[in-house]
Amino acid sequence: MQLNYNRIAGQSLERLAALSDGIFAIAMTLLVFDLRLTINPYQAAQFNFLTTNPYPLWIRPDLQFQYERVFWDSIIAFAPHLLVYLMSFLTLGIFWLGQQTQLSQFERSDRDLTWMHLIFLFGVSMLPFSTRLLAENMNFRSALIVYWLNLLLLGVMLYRSMRYAWNAQLVKATTTPDMSTATTRRIENYQILYAFGMLLCIVSINWSIVFIVLVQLNAAIAPRVRWLGGL
Amino acid sequence: MQLNYNRIAGQSLERLAALSDGIFAIAMTLLVFDLRLTINPYQAAQFNFLTTNPYPLWIRPDLQFQYERVFWDSIIAFAPHLLVYLMSFLTLGIFWLGQQTQLSQFERSDRDLTWMHLIFLFGVSMLPFSTRLLAENMNFRSALIVYWLNLLLLGVMLYRSMRYAWNAQLVKATTTPDMSTATTRRIENYQILYAFGMLLCIVSINWSIVFIVLVQLNAAIAPRVRWLGGL
Amino acid sequence: MQLNYNRIAGQSLERLAALSDGIFAIAMTLLVFDLRLTINPYQAAQFNFLTTNPYPLWIRPDLQFQYERVFWDSIIAFAPHLLVYLMSFLTLGIFWLGQQTQLSQFERSDRDLTWMHLIFLFGVSMLPFSTRLLAENMNFRSALIVYWLNLLLLGVMLYRSMRYAWNAQLVKATTTPDMSTATTRRIENYQILYAFGMLLCIVSINWSIVFIVLVQLNAAIAPRVRWLGGL
Amino acid sequence: MQLNYNRIAGQSLERLAALSDGIFAIAMTLLVFDLRLTINPYQAAQFNFLTTNPYPLWIRPDLQFQYERVFWDSIIAFAPHLLVYLMSFLTLGIFWLGQQTQLSQFERSDRDLTWMHLIFLFGVSMLPFSTRLLAENMNFRSALIVYWLNLLLLGVMLYRSMRYAWNAQLVKATTTPDMSTATTRRIENYQILYAFGMLLCIVSINWSIVFIVLVQLNAAIAPRVRWLGGL
Repeated sequence: MQLNYNRIAGQSLERLAALSDGIFAIAMTLLVFDLRLTINPYQAAQFNFLTTNPYPLWIRPDLQFQYERVFWDSIIAFAPHLLVYLMSFLTLGIFWLGQQTQLSQFERSDRDLTWMHLIFLFGVSMLPFSTRLLAENMNFRSALIVYWLNLLLLGVMLYRSMRYAWNAQLVKATTTPDMSTATTRRIENYQILYAFGMLLCIVSINWSIVFIVLVQLNAAIAPRVRWLGGL
Repeated sequence: MQLNYNRIAGQSLERLAALSDGIFAIAMTLLVFDLRLTINPYQAAQFNFLTTNPYPLWIRPDLQFQYERVFWDSIIAFAPHLLVYLMSFLTLGIFWLGQQTQLSQFERSDRDLTWMHLIFLFGVSMLPFSTRLLAENMNFRSALIVYWLNLLLLGVMLYRSMRYAWNAQLVKATTTPDMSTATTRRIENYQILYAFGMLLCIVSINWSIVFIVLVQLNAAIAPRVRWLGGL
Repeated sequence: MQLNYNRIAGQSLERLAALSDGIFAIAMTLLVFDLRLTINPYQAAQFNFLTTNPYPLWIRPDLQFQYERVFWDSIIAFAPHLLVYLMSFLTLGIFWLGQQTQLSQFERSDRDLTWMHLIFLFGVSMLPFSTRLLAENMNFRSALIVYWLNLLLLGVMLYRSMRYAWNAQLVKATTTPDMSTATTRRIENYQILYAFGMLLCIVSINWSIVFIVLVQLNAAIAPRVRWLGGL
Repeated sequence: MQLNYNRIAGQSLERLAALSDGIFAIAMTLLVFDLRLTINPYQAAQFNFLTTNPYPLWIRPDLQFQYERVFWDSIIAFAPHLLVYLMSFLTLGIFWLGQQTQLSQFERSDRDLTWMHLIFLFGVSMLPFSTRLLAENMNFRSALIVYWLNLLLLGVMLYRSMRYAWNAQLVKATTTPDMSTATTRRIENYQILYAFGMLLCIVSINWSIVFIVLVQLNAAIAPRVRWLGGL
């Protein structure tokens, strides 16, 4: 009888971790790299004489501060974009931590577990895409739904991976049922919060985004308040 | 007699694995990052009043749903592109798994084996290029042929690497002939399927793409059906 | 009582190191990749006959050298941009070294320390953005302030990470108080220099940039002169 | 007396290797990702009826082959670019192998050695830039000189790193003087060849590029011919 390739494939947790770190690192960096601030050239052109004769700040500081305001106006107009990107960076950090915690509880991998994580990583690599989609189309509720589907995919795959590893006895001997439950409960809680945040878009997309940012900040900061930190 | 540099070069499997994970991670992420959806601005402009006065969903839901349809129309028009990108993500996942499985069977590397894998990685780094070529030129049969040549290069290099490592006795003591054969047979089977898929373009390029996507899905899902999973 | 997810999350220093290396590697490469030199086409067009009939250099060398000057003129006009990018590459190198040195002194990590480093990495991924912002808006003092805030964020997070790890007893047994102090004093010294460099923009932005480049070169070269190398 | 930060910084070879793998992986992939083939739309438009009514290949194959030629014409016009990119991929492979071989001979690192490699990595991250500069300005001898300076920087830093590590006794006990000499001799030989290739641009830039490609192919293939393989 022939040996099936699928029985010997994908057993290295180290390689999976290295691929994951690479994909997370790129997604986190591309996210930010995508940001391009443009200064209004018409506004800036009025102060041309300042830049062709660079004066120290104490010569006509009133004009120079007016000039700098052109810059800050662009930053402020840009702020909602920045908020969406911050939300995605937090999201990537949270899910990276989640996957790291899980992999550290596994003893070894197999082909099916590896593919679950590859689909999870597909979701990670989609996040810069759905972030840009949302940032560029913040008046479409559907853009938020695509973003939420992305969050859902990430959660579902981590959840299934934990359950599968537990059932297929791929976890370490030191991994207790408590730890497995803490992991899956955590995912359930946050996915409920994301779904609620998404539904807020019935009222207003801005409320949705602010709510999800607060949820992600809570996950990142982990306040010592019991009911928040224990989510 | 002088010591030849080529005899001491390229012996680290760890470094090769790390470089490979990096290149796969970037190729997978760039693939998706390349996707840019643009909403039809003329269609969207008709609903301008909705976005300047953001109403909750229950005020004129009929209009608001019409507005959201502008978004989904763009997504649907974009779907063939998405299919090509999904195919490439699956391809990268499959070949990453294939290379990982092989490297885990090797004891050490040498200069020639390392260069085989560098050429393999060149194929990997070409995949975002040939994917974009195909997605942008889906009415050229030649674009599909370039894509297929890319798949062929990946398969040939993995095949040669396994054979070379076996003959040069670079494999681990625990690697049986069975395992080596399972690896090479797997490559043969899939390359035959890819070649058949490519030939389908004689009839229609769409058939080719759908066929190759199905082949890749089969490799990823590995159904328990014997004749499919055992490919 | 339920086990809190936050108590088991983020304990792997290896994963944190791998993610960091990935993010630094991408930031360093994207920085340079962003550079695009364009040759003045009008100037080049005057020498069209040279490129349509490619002569060896000894035929009309006077004309050919004039032609090459078109290229070097573009490079020289591009030089201030290059300086900003060099400054950022040095910055990334310095902070990579700083973080590497710190992580090598830690025994293990916890959730809070991991998040400190994730925020540090957010600063790293922001650096290509603030570098581009500065290179494209070198006549805005505010662009320099944004850049400096980026440097400050990096310093503050590394500083807090060292203090936190020391207090939470996450450091190795071989890490002496001396080593911890050397690390934090180093950060203090350089942050004071950065702040001074930033304030120089009151006189002129160019002075600020040149000063910060010199500071970074000092950190990279570490001259044997005592008062400079000991900073 | 205070402990100097510089005496405890940058001792991890693993981190240096991981950062290097990351930077090489990105440089290799961005290189290819930068390639964008555009099909001549006027030529393609003549065959519009073929793509709006996609016929199988056996209906009017003469017309369909003419149509496919539009694609191949673009590929052929693109070929010189591809050659430059192939040259750069080979270059990156060769220097990655060179650095890997060196690091595998080192026992540990120190601050100065780490900075030598950071400057080496700066050269690596510059290569996509100088490759694009050359590919877009193949009629400027100066673009080739910039490219060559990039190769020179890579060679010089690897050379200095080997000499420094030997003198500072950072090499492993198993690293013989033979091995150190093989490494430095290798660099000398190839740098002489690169310099000769660069000088060929006095006659013609195309000769230079073809010569350097042949040199890099020789390094990659390592033919069994003694005087070539022993370079």
